[in-house]
Formats: sequence, C-alpha cells, structure tokens
Amino acid sequence: MSELTGLQFVAGEAVAGTGEPFTAIDPVAGSALSPTFREAGSDQIDRACRAAGAAAPVLQACSRPQRAQLLRAIADGLTGLGDRLLERVTAETALPRPRVQNELARTQLQLRQFADLIVEGEYLDVRIDHADTKRPGPPKPDLRSMRVPLGPVAVFGASNFPLAYSVAGGDTASALAAGCPVVVKAHPAHPGTSELVADVVVAAVRQQGLPAGVFAMLHGRTPATGGALVQHPAITAVGFTGSLQAGRSLCALAAARPAPIPVFAEMGSMNPVLVLPKALAARGAAIAEQLVASATLAQGQFCTSPGLVAYLDGPGADAFVGALRDRFAAANGGPAVHPSIRASFEKALAEVSALPVTTAACAANASGAATALRPVLLHTSAAVVLQQARLREEIYGPAVLAVACRDRAELLALVESLHGHLTGTVHGDGDDVVLHGDICSTLARRVGRLIGNGVPTGVEVCPSMVHGGPWPAASDARFTAVGSGAIARWLRPLCWQDWPADALPLELQEQNPLRVRRRVDGRLE
Amino acid sequence: MSELTGLQFVAGEAVAGTGEPFTAIDPVAGSALSPTFREAGSDQIDRACRAAGAAAPVLQACSRPQRAQLLRAIADGLTGLGDRLLERVTAETALPRPRVQNELARTQLQLRQFADLIVEGEYLDVRIDHADTKRPGPPKPDLRSMRVPLGPVAVFGASNFPLAYSVAGGDTASALAAGCPVVVKAHPAHPGTSELVADVVVAAVRQQGLPAGVFAMLHGRTPATGGALVQHPAITAVGFTGSLQAGRSLCALAAARPAPIPVFAEMGSMNPVLVLPKALAARGAAIAEQLVASATLAQGQFCTSPGLVAYLDGPGADAFVGALRDRFAAANGGPAVHPSIRASFEKALAEVSALPVTTAACAANASGAATALRPVLLHTSAAVVLQQARLREEIYGPAVLAVACRDRAELLALVESLHGHLTGTVHGDGDDVVLHGDICSTLARRVGRLIGNGVPTGVEVCPSMVHGGPWPAASDARFTAVGSGAIARWLRPLCWQDWPADALPLELQEQNPLRVRRRVDGRLE
Repeated sequence: MSELTGLQFVAGEAVAGTGEPFTAIDPVAGSALSPTFREAGSDQIDRACRAAGAAAPVLQACSRPQRAQLLRAIADGLTGLGDRLLERVTAETALPRPRVQNELARTQLQLRQFADLIVEGEYLDVRIDHADTKRPGPPKPDLRSMRVPLGPVAVFGASNFPLAYSVAGGDTASALAAGCPVVVKAHPAHPGTSELVADVVVAAVRQQGLPAGVFAMLHGRTPATGGALVQHPAITAVGFTGSLQAGRSLCALAAARPAPIPVFAEMGSMNPVLVLPKALAARGAAIAEQLVASATLAQGQFCTSPGLVAYLDGPGADAFVGALRDRFAAANGGPAVHPSIRASFEKALAEVSALPVTTAACAANASGAATALRPVLLHTSAAVVLQQARLREEIYGPAVLAVACRDRAELLALVESLHGHLTGTVHGDGDDVVLHGDICSTLARRVGRLIGNGVPTGVEVCPSMVHGGPWPAASDARFTAVGSGAIARWLRPLCWQDWPADALPLELQEQNPLRVRRRVDGRLE
Repeated sequence: MSELTGLQFVAGEAVAGTGEPFTAIDPVAGSALSPTFREAGSDQIDRACRAAGAAAPVLQACSRPQRAQLLRAIADGLTGLGDRLLERVTAETALPRPRVQNELARTQLQLRQFADLIVEGEYLDVRIDHADTKRPGPPKPDLRSMRVPLGPVAVFGASNFPLAYSVAGGDTASALAAGCPVVVKAHPAHPGTSELVADVVVAAVRQQGLPAGVFAMLHGRTPATGGALVQHPAITAVGFTGSLQAGRSLCALAAARPAPIPVFAEMGSMNPVLVLPKALAARGAAIAEQLVASATLAQGQFCTSPGLVAYLDGPGADAFVGALRDRFAAANGGPAVHPSIRASFEKALAEVSALPVTTAACAANASGAATALRPVLLHTSAAVVLQQARLREEIYGPAVLAVACRDRAELLALVESLHGHLTGTVHGDGDDVVLHGDICSTLARRVGRLIGNGVPTGVEVCPSMVHGGPWPAASDARFTAVGSGAIARWLRPLCWQDWPADALPLELQEQNPLRVRRRVDGRLE
C-alpha cells in the first residue's frame, strides 16, 4: 500500500491544497506526524461545490438500489484498509485500538443500515390522493408526493469520532443515501485518517459509474475554509458536529446567505444526570461507579459524556459523593485527541474554579501523554448553579459537576434552569420516577433522549434513536443525527399534480412497480 | 350579538392594547372602519408568551382526543359567527362573499382534518426497539421514540387569507394539533375579523378546561411587535405567511436569538408556467384563457398566483400571446385587500417598466375601488429576463410576465436562472413532457409542487399536498404549510431509553393501549 499523500479530493481528483500547510499531531508525544497537508484554496472549494451541484441531478436520478450499492461499497472498502486505517486513527487521536475497532464497525453499520433503508423505500413517504371530478365545487386533482434530495450537503468531520462522524460517517452516509452529493471538510485533527477514508469513497463513486462530483474531501484548519463552504451557492444544507461556538458561527453564515440553507449542528451537551432519593439511598455507590466510568470513557470526549449530576440531600448522599470522589481520584488521565482539546479543557476548568465550586477529586496523569486530560470532580450546591450560568454550560472533557439540592423544589428549579441537552438521565427506584413526574417531564422538554437508570454514553444506531435535542444540543430539535431518522435532514417533499403518468417517478406510478409502501387516499397500503 | 371591541386576547382576557391606535380600511371606499384597535404593548406580548410557556406542558399532557375536541369546537364556533363574520371579512378585505364562504369552509376543513389526524396518531411516528441483552458486545437497551410538541408557536396572520391563514388558520390549527400553545399576531389589514375568530378560539379553550395561555391574539402593525414576539424566550417556533422582506427579517431575528428557533416562513412565489411546443400549437388560446383567469383570481392575491409564463417561439406562439393580450385587456380590476398592497404593486410595476419590457395589455378599472389593482400583462424575451434579476422576482398582484424563448436551450437557461417557487406548471401534449424531461426536472428542483396542464391557484388540503419549496418560496423546503404534513413543523422526536414502564407515555407502553400504529423492531405494525 502506498504512503499517505497529503492530498485532498476535488471532483474525483487527488490534488494538493493551495492554502497553508499543517500536520496531524501525535497526542501522546505532542509531535507532528507526517505527511504535510495543505488547507484547501478558495478555487478548490468552488470547484468541489460546483462539481457537487452538477452531480446532484445524476445522483438523484440514479436508482435507490444503486445508491445502496455505493454505500455498501464504501463500507466494504473500509474493511479493505485493514490495519493501516486502525494504526493511523490511533496515531492521530490516541484513541485505544478496541475503541477504534468499535467505531469502524459502527461506521460500517451506519452505511449498511442506510443502504437497507433506501432499498425498502418507506422513508420516501409516498402519498397518493386520487382525483375526484364528481365532488361538489372545483374538481379534486390527482396529487402524488414523495421526498426528494435537497442537493449538495457540506459535512464537517468531528474531532472525537474520526470515523463514525467524519469523512464516511453518519452525516455523509445519510446524505448520500438521500441522494445528495457530499463535500466533506475533514477535521484537521485527523487528516491522514480522512485521506484514507476519502480515497475509499472516491473509489466507490468511480466504481459505481457515478459522476466524480458526488463526493469531495477538503482539508481545512481555519474558519475561513468552512465558512466558504457553507456560503457556496451550490451547497444546499450543512451537517456539523463540534463546538457551540463553531456551530453557531456556521448557522449564522448559513442564515445570512442570499438564499439561506438549513444547518444541522450538533454542538455538545452536559447530559445531566439526576439521582432520585430511593435510588440514592439504595445504590448510590453503584451509580457513582457507573457514572465515573461513563464520564471518563475516552477522556470524556463523547457528545454524550455526563457533565452534571444532581442529587437530593438525604440518605445516601454522603456515600454517593464519597464514592464519586474515590472513583475520580482513582481514575486515570489520558491523551486528548488533539492538543487544542486539552487547552480548551484547562481554560474551562480555570473559569469554573473562579466560582464557588470545590474541586473534590482529581485523577493523576498516569498516561504520561503530552495532551493528557485529567478527570476532575467538581462539587457545589444548586443555589450556586442557579446563580452562575457558566456552571450550566458544557466543560468538554472528563469533568463532572456534582450538584447538591436541598429539596425537591430546588432540584426542579435546577432542571428548569437548564438549556437543551442531548440526553437526560434519571436514576430512580420504586416510585421515584412517578413521584418526581414533574421533574422528569421538565427534564424531558430539555433533551432529545431520556435514560432510565443508565449512562448517557453509548448511542445505539437504530430507528428509535434520537441524537439531537433543543438548542444548543442541536441547531434544530426536529431532527436526529443518529438512526434512520437522520436521513430526513437532507430530504424535502415534492408534489406532482395531474402530472403525465409516463413522466412520474416509478415510485408514484399507479401500478407501484417498485412496490414501496404508500399512503393512498389517506390509508397506508 | 355584541359589537366589535377593538380588544385583544392575552392569557384568556380581552384587553386593550397599550400601543398605537389603528383601524381597518375599507378597500373599496378607502376609508377607516370602526372600531379603533391598538397595537400590543411589550408587557402584553411578554404576558401572552409567558402564559403560553406555562400552558405548554398542560397542553402536551392533555390527550389527543381532547386536543381534537378543541379543534372541532373552534370549527363549530366559526359556524356560529354566521353572517357577522362573512360581513366583516368582506368589509375589511373586499374579497367577494363566495370566496369568503369557500375560505371559511377550508378553514374549518383544516381544523377538522388535523383533529382526525391526531386522533389516528400515526403522525407521532412511534418507534420501539426492544432490548437485546444477548448480542455480542454491550447489551442493547430498550428504546422507544415518538414526536412531542416543540412548545409555544408564534403565528403571523396573512393579509390575503383572513381566515385560512390567519387567527385560526392552518398554522394555528397545526400547532394546536401538535400540542403547541399559539400566540397569534393578527394581520392589521383585518383586525375585526381577527377579533371575531380569536373570541371563538378563546371560548373553545375555556370550554375544554384548558389553561388560558393555550391561545393569545395580539394586534400589531409595526415590525417591532412581531419582532418582540419572535424574540421572546418562551416562543419555540414561528409560522409566517407574507412578504419576502418581512419573512427574511423574522428569520434573521430568530437566528440571532440566544437560543435560535425554527421559522417556517412562506414568502411568495412567481409560480412559473411553461408552455411546451405541442401544447402551444394545439391549445395556446385555451391555455391563455385559463392562465389569465388564474392570475386575476382575487386580483392575483394568492401565494400561488402565476406571475411568469415562458413559451417557445414557434407554431401557436402568436396566437397564445394574442389571446393573453385579449384576455388581460378584457379583465376587470378590483380592490386589493389593503391599500398597502396596491402601493407595493404600483411600485413593482414602476420598477419593471424601467426595464426592456413591453406592457402588452392592461385592464380597465371597472370596479371604482379606491385600492384597485388593474391586471397587467408584460412581455419580454428570455434574454432580457436572464440579464435582469428583478424580472425573476415576484410582483405581488395581477401581473403576468410573458417570456418568449428563442429555443429549447434558452428555455432551459431561463428555468435554471429561477430561484425557489411554490409551484411550477407545465403545459405539454403528447410527448412534450418526456421530450423536455431535462427542463421539467430542472423546474422540479426549484418548486414544491409540479402541475401538469393546470393552474397553480387552488391548493387542495390533503395528505399529499406540498405548499412550500426552496428559498424564497419557503424558509425551509423540508416542510409544507398545507396538508397533514404541516404538523411536522411543530414536532420533535424524543427517545425514552430503559425508561420505567409505568412512567412511559401510553403510546409507548408495551401493550399499546391506545392502539396507534407503531414501528416495532424495524417493522411497521
């Protein structure tokens, strides 16, 4: 196998960026990894987007089974990269190999699930209402609708999921499935991983005989590159996973375009955890153990990492906090996926330390890594959190803020003060959840996923998954980034009225030659 | 029956606005109609929104049949207003009585269709994926999702649909159906109509025993009132029908909030019509007659009014243009719903007249109305339209721009130059549509609804209707404002993971006590 080239892919061609050079960083050693990459130039961004625009009608017109083959070819191609991919991911991110293997499997599962979804065809939401020329008043026309792709989608790779939310991750898989060409801006923390994966996607596009514009991958380290991509006239939607600051800025650019476009940005979350009295009394130590394991998994670099746990003072509270403290003290620090993550983590801790918050426990840096994140347990009261908005904002990394609530009313007030989060977890035994129904429904209005007696990390890829939530967990709570529903971000309904039968898409023709499930005259077939 | 009061409804109470006074205008006489209304004060906007926020959990928790009863009670209450409503609408808008009667029937149909939709429950999109503790790797949790309401929705009444897109129109009906409280900003062109309808909604809310905050109606004539509503922290989404300028400004305000919210704005459209060669040769005069009738219906004050017709030079072209000219010359002017509409129409005509465009025909003002809009036919070549962006923008009112295309390539280039529109109509006979497949699919990518051999006016209220489209037809092409799909604008998915069975919503409980259709382990029941 050939060495990494440092190139990017524009309209099917591997080309050198014309912008500033940069490299990946080994998070353990803190040193540069070869080769040198270059940021995309504005002419390259333009070329990639225009090729995507030209490819959009072709990808839309190609059959769903053919698009499914493209997705499966990408999944198979990733397997073909073998150890080379796993080694490069590990070198660039310091994520442990089993985690990388799991993430690769998840990435392939996503691609194959979307392939199955589009072959089945129900996601098209086909609706047919037949004409009625005999009703009183004006005759009813023949109306048929289904969902069609929006057009080219700009996808921003995430630092914390170099495979599952990057070049061939969930956003790309769902957009291609929908029939939308994709222009990826690779995350600069793992450019080599991105090159390897992009090479597989480009080969799969070629192998399927599709136009090269169906996929492009650009390198970019500065906001200007991403901004130019979002502002390009050929781009019709954006998928982003990252920080609130970057996501908000892309949303603003998209809204200010001459023709605004939708952005689905997933922007982080504290994933609040509530421990209700009976659960606290019965199994506080076990909950603490489970929670610390979840919060320190991958050094807290999951969107669903728990960052806040609230409990009611009372039986079990001391034991719970004691167990949290012990577990945090015994936890191990480990490398961040990129030095910039560590810098942000330390900055956030410094901000929070200036507030009335106790650092209750802090792990040693046993890893020796240059970019190590050391797990930290912070402790304070609900009264303080209610006064200090900063404490209700995410600290990205392995930090948990334990919040003592004097009583039920204070816990309710705390939950009411929270903004949107991806998840909300409740530990409750017996009638805990029913007795605290108001608190749970208040939490429910602020999250995309409610979890009972578990941990927020671990996002199942299945039809009922919701990975999103009210702002700022996501920029639009009406969509999910994970699960089959994620395809809806890139589709719009189109209606054909009294259209010539022979010019209708096959899915809408009266005889239903492709046998998709349809709603005909209000009834599901 | 009592006289109109000039009041508005805040948290269930009829109160006088604390802002500037204004009146409705009789469009025929151009004179003020009593009584005097007053713009809402900022304290009243705040109170209405906070009451809506407080009512949101109650409306969400109330059963779907009860919400359906609320919608039906509103529909019945409108019938109860009888002639009084029809007379006030006619006085305020000068719309002919049969049109008003049709619009009332449509408004009631919308309310009752959403009632049926929520009782059926399939719109909830219930998905259940059972746990699997035996699979390799981490056990699969039990996951259940369905759609829940976003929260309070701000609805902006439209000038051109005083009933069907105003206080109890499609946006309000779909939002209440979804379980979202509604704060309406009534359109200042028909404040009396708005008061009558709001009174019915307030009574229905009270009769159902729901919190008064479920519905409010504010008067507002200045952008400040609508802006304050969109920026209020309790508002979670916006429904708007009106001009591109106002819609864009509300979108920008919503995007700049500390927590941005989605806006569905329907902002007008030229509804382009293409006449293909065989249809032009065979029935050009009949198409012209049909088109002029559609364009002058209600003085062109429909979102779906056709504003541009393109045809290929060749057999039938002269006859077609001649028939268009004759029909326009014979058409009648009539009153706009408000003097401001006439002013905008005249301004737009003046702008366009400065360009290389011929005024081919202009109707007399037979109506004698002070605010009369006189139907105008404009004529030019595709080459001019391709150079002048202004000609590709809407002239709201009874104006049609006929565009001669030299050849197929020029017609394609014209269609490619168009931005988003609500509809696109194609007249084609024989193999016209198939032979011009590229032009039709180019048009399809720019519209929400394709129409064969018909007119764009007339929007059927049914499951397959799409009333929306790419920007600027709508602010988000992924949704529709008409038809059962319109409810999706106000819903988001929520997932329950390993949640205690007795605390799950009934729709998600294993035994399915409410018998809603669900997707269980990937298969639709």
